[in-house]
Amino acid sequence: MKEARYFYVPNAVTETELPADEATHALRVLRLKEGDELFLIDGEGGFFRAEVALTTSKKCVYTIKQTLKQEPTWRGGIHLAIAPTKDMGRMEWLVEKATEIGFNKISFLDCKFSERKSLRVDRIEKIIISAVKQSRKGWKPVVEPMIPFHQFIDNCTSAGQKNICHCYSEISKLDFFTEANQSLEEDILVLVGPEGDFSFDEVRYAMEHGFKSVTLGESRLRTETAGLFAVMISQLARRV
Amino acid sequence: MKEARYFYVPNAVTETELPADEATHALRVLRLKEGDELFLIDGEGGFFRAEVALTTSKKCVYTIKQTLKQEPTWRGGIHLAIAPTKDMGRMEWLVEKATEIGFNKISFLDCKFSERKSLRVDRIEKIIISAVKQSRKGWKPVVEPMIPFHQFIDNCTSAGQKNICHCYSEISKLDFFTEANQSLEEDILVLVGPEGDFSFDEVRYAMEHGFKSVTLGESRLRTETAGLFAVMISQLARRV
Repeated sequence: MKEARYFYVPNAVTETELPADEATHALRVLRLKEGDELFLIDGEGGFFRAEVALTTSKKCVYTIKQTLKQEPTWRGGIHLAIAPTKDMGRMEWLVEKATEIGFNKISFLDCKFSERKSLRVDRIEKIIISAVKQSRKGWKPVVEPMIPFHQFIDNCTSAGQKNICHCYSEISKLDFFTEANQSLEEDILVLVGPEGDFSFDEVRYAMEHGFKSVTLGESRLRTETAGLFAVMISQLARRV
Repeated sequence: MKEARYFYVPNAVTETELPADEATHALRVLRLKEGDELFLIDGEGGFFRAEVALTTSKKCVYTIKQTLKQEPTWRGGIHLAIAPTKDMGRMEWLVEKATEIGFNKISFLDCKFSERKSLRVDRIEKIIISAVKQSRKGWKPVVEPMIPFHQFIDNCTSAGQKNICHCYSEISKLDFFTEANQSLEEDILVLVGPEGDFSFDEVRYAMEHGFKSVTLGESRLRTETAGLFAVMISQLARRV
């Protein structure tokens, strides 16, 4: 089965044809024809074997033949909130790799020391969808637009473990891997700061709002490396 | 202290001046002058505070003022042997990230299904040195040139834990994280295959030569993601 025959189709069960861009790929690149087999991923745990029922110059209508069950491979939701790096390429590889490893949500933070103040969510979304297909995940991580740090903290009213990574030696830190191994059924959220770290006040504000001060270890990591390491640690702790 | 004032100087104690390329950077870019402070990393655990003693148009002579002790932050040597991806960019980020996280050696394997049959070690070395300086590591990971898979296995006569990651469902696999948590003082070696995986015979050959058959988990990972995940898992298991 060719890699390329995996398609991302939100609401695959209620829909009957591939979304426009996926249809173009199916018809122009793969030249799929009536009766050809394809696989649909709805991004919410649904994974389907389907068949091309009808094609026109722009449309690719399918019939679902089989629902392939995909069990979650980790417990609780893994949520990374990160201040994007100046170099967008570094964020793009982070989301590709984190998607392969497996996580549920990414949010982008506008912090005091952020070098990047805006970000194209559609581009991030595209990379995530590609990685979802490539790694054949049933779930697509959710992408949230960039918001100011304090607003993000204020919005964090849901239950679950909340953690903030930082490098201030004056503030005592718990080991993130140890923390991730607690309360395994709960959602876990981890915050990673910009190149210049969170400000001291941002760390304090998060801690006053129920965030634990944590460290990923002794190594001095770039922002995107820290983000990926946090996702990998969460995965190792939460996998079933 | 500026990031850029960290210099990689093998044999920093017996040498008295910066290597040519580091001297150029010190003199032309940073415009260091007599009396300026700089930090030297010898790549073998030595970390020094030094002072510029003399400059000429091309030379930068230093005097070591203080030896800063850097304790190892993990136990045993972490050694990754990987079949390089077709796209060199993916290998370059792997070595950058693995260096930040911390590991000791990388080897490159020429496997049956390898899409890349050669590799510029000098380029990899350059990226590693840059990451060593950026993350202020006292130790520089060793880079070994690419060799055929069977030759690599035949050469693996040293003690320590040996592991091979693969995707064959017919061969039973141990969990790599669990294995990495055993015999913590021993060196740990992990093999990661090319895009098309190791051949069945290669996996069998390694197992006949004392390698354990292991898995990194349920996720379908690209070669470079698997390589980095293996290093991160080893780090988490071996850190002090």
